[in-house]
Amino acid sequence: MRPTGRLHIGHYFGALQNWVRLQNEVLPAGRVVAQHAAPVQSQEPAYECFYFIADWHALTSDYADTSAVAENTLQIMIDYLAAGLDPAKSVIFQQSAVPEHAELHLLLSMVTPLGWLERVPTYKEALENVKDKDLHNYGFLGYPVLQTADIVIYSKEGAPLYVPVGEDQVSHVELSREIVRRFNSFYELRLRDEAFDQSQSVHLHRLLMLAGERLEDYLFEYPLSTETKIAILSALRRSTAAEGLENFLERISKFKESVALLSVDRVLAEPEVMLTKTPKIPGLDGRKMSKSYGNAITLSETDEEIRKKTKVMVTDPARKRRTDPGNPDVCPVYDWHKLFSAGEPGRLEWVRQGCTTAGIGCIECKDAMATNLIKWIAPVRERRVKWEKNPKGVLEILDEGSRRARVVAQGTMERVREAVFGWGKKRKEIGGSAAKA
Amino acid sequence: MRPTGRLHIGHYFGALQNWVRLQNEVLPAGRVVAQHAAPVQSQEPAYECFYFIADWHALTSDYADTSAVAENTLQIMIDYLAAGLDPAKSVIFQQSAVPEHAELHLLLSMVTPLGWLERVPTYKEALENVKDKDLHNYGFLGYPVLQTADIVIYSKEGAPLYVPVGEDQVSHVELSREIVRRFNSFYELRLRDEAFDQSQSVHLHRLLMLAGERLEDYLFEYPLSTETKIAILSALRRSTAAEGLENFLERISKFKESVALLSVDRVLAEPEVMLTKTPKIPGLDGRKMSKSYGNAITLSETDEEIRKKTKVMVTDPARKRRTDPGNPDVCPVYDWHKLFSAGEPGRLEWVRQGCTTAGIGCIECKDAMATNLIKWIAPVRERRVKWEKNPKGVLEILDEGSRRARVVAQGTMERVREAVFGWGKKRKEIGGSAAKA
Repeated sequence: MRPTGRLHIGHYFGALQNWVRLQNEVLPAGRVVAQHAAPVQSQEPAYECFYFIADWHALTSDYADTSAVAENTLQIMIDYLAAGLDPAKSVIFQQSAVPEHAELHLLLSMVTPLGWLERVPTYKEALENVKDKDLHNYGFLGYPVLQTADIVIYSKEGAPLYVPVGEDQVSHVELSREIVRRFNSFYELRLRDEAFDQSQSVHLHRLLMLAGERLEDYLFEYPLSTETKIAILSALRRSTAAEGLENFLERISKFKESVALLSVDRVLAEPEVMLTKTPKIPGLDGRKMSKSYGNAITLSETDEEIRKKTKVMVTDPARKRRTDPGNPDVCPVYDWHKLFSAGEPGRLEWVRQGCTTAGIGCIECKDAMATNLIKWIAPVRERRVKWEKNPKGVLEILDEGSRRARVVAQGTMERVREAVFGWGKKRKEIGGSAAKA
Repeated sequence: MRPTGRLHIGHYFGALQNWVRLQNEVLPAGRVVAQHAAPVQSQEPAYECFYFIADWHALTSDYADTSAVAENTLQIMIDYLAAGLDPAKSVIFQQSAVPEHAELHLLLSMVTPLGWLERVPTYKEALENVKDKDLHNYGFLGYPVLQTADIVIYSKEGAPLYVPVGEDQVSHVELSREIVRRFNSFYELRLRDEAFDQSQSVHLHRLLMLAGERLEDYLFEYPLSTETKIAILSALRRSTAAEGLENFLERISKFKESVALLSVDRVLAEPEVMLTKTPKIPGLDGRKMSKSYGNAITLSETDEEIRKKTKVMVTDPARKRRTDPGNPDVCPVYDWHKLFSAGEPGRLEWVRQGCTTAGIGCIECKDAMATNLIKWIAPVRERRVKWEKNPKGVLEILDEGSRRARVVAQGTMERVREAVFGWGKKRKEIGGSAAKA
């Protein structure tokens, strides 16, 4: 979430509810899952969840006035806690407190074609529709690159990486997959150290020939010089990039000794969409719920405000008079009933029956819905009020989450840096004590 | 310098020579200079120099094959040391070892208009001329943003920031100035804490009115709420951004008590061009010297290679026969003589006289030049060979330089983060122990 304002019930049902569910999901006890050696213990969490507040992303549109970003970050953290995110189960953190995201963003930017970014539909839409801010900036164009870094920096070797999103975000995750795939394609191929042993020279020669190289272009004096080693790896990378690594590996598969000189290490995980069910929750006026439309109920809304706002809520526009029958399937109030009144036996039937026969009026109907919304919001709001009184405690939780996130992000960046620059290998080559502490 | 290959004498005379001169320049003893309290001591350096190896920049064009980047980084560091850069005087470091550059790059990217980048002449030229690499990537477009971060992260409060460049780089530094100026314009205006004291309310009201705000839109209940404080700062920033901060301050200058509530803190220094004299040093074939043209003399070239290569060097094309008189002013060999033979009494006159009268032949002339070039290169090459044998020592120097650079970069980023997000202030507001350790 970007810290551009407080969260409302639209955010809750659109995302937070699912986040809380995922955090609380446990593996079936006794099952053996791929990434675990031993059978699952009881109450073992199904996912390791990372949720963050995207304060750098807030700058892509709100760079010109950041006065409220810190306060909004604090408030969103309070919203998270009020909604039920639990720092004991999830890593909840602040994006800018994990500067490794910026480093990965920079590296990914080098391999991301401009055309991919320029063609993102939401980018073009925003440029056309947003009139009060100038979005023609380099950073705004790079939004999906930063988003990709945000996701894949939490890659874990050998484990899938899911992004819980709704339908409207699927194409963004797809773009992240494309960027990661391209990044991996340049950096995943390595040569094992043995490849440069004289005993393997026949197999190395064959590898080069299979990649279309002329052996005369190389100086095969053993031990091979640094220049020759670099030239060999470089040639293999160029050649496999042109053909496609998969294709190359398939084509040469019968030369097992030559294939064995190669290693292919996936650097970053390709993120996968985890499509989450999000119920329909229109705003008070029937449009998309949004703070800027003034049609939202925040997570800290008072009972009085809820009563007042829902009283004037939009209903089926065809039901003009009390005596007209209505259609709940086009009525925003009924959408809300489905969320808040489902637990009350008979209430949904009462609404449908009463509405379609003009047996009840909209005022009665809204009133019943508001009563249930108020019941639903009470514990959320209570937690919110509690944390509002303790901003120091909120910050401590956020800081601790950022610290934990950073440990993971740093681990990923070590692998990424090695894949891109290979200093670990180079330092080892040069000799023990040049290795960094 | 980007680690895309070894350095040659073109790099030396185009840049390194000046870098060494700047590093060795001392202030005149006894003079009082602005940024010093006490008069200058003897042998006090005139500049604090930062020189780096731009390994991230190498990725903007060479992302698809990074096999050689680490080795090239090492070799360029050896070139630096051979050329006379002294780690005791200059901070010599590796870009990617100071990840704060990436963080500042990200922040600057948010305020950099796409049009500024798309219109950079060298960008358009490269897209048109470079055919063997696909440069249509997000990172390549952002090259000047990263360059700006590289420079201004070494801003020092109250001191000017110079970039020693030749004519061809002046426009890049100009663009950096523009980016920094725009960044500062959004984040330099703050309100002093006193502004929110009840005793200052009249002056605060006036400030808001002068900024075109309606006081009815604010809730002036003291102590002011966080929301009100944010709204006030936000309004002032929006209004001054529209009018221009300088204009606003000038317009309201007679309301001294109101002006006193504001503070304007330059966040980053605007870099200034330090135009360096670079002598003309064409390649062996008369074109621009470049490794890829095969017309360069590297800093580790052997005497034999120098003799061999200079023998076939291009001269005044009008001098076809030994008996034709030549024109040294259009002859690459004479350009080289000016660099390498100036210390030999009478040699330059001998060349001019002999050439224009056909008194000497080109072979003789080249031979005399090569002798002096060999004399010149000997100590450079000797230092190069010494360091080549000690790559571990080279890396240690580079690591120590990166560590020193990082301390400065981290200090700058603390100021930048505070200017953008204001967490220091927010944490103080919230209370002592929320302040980060």
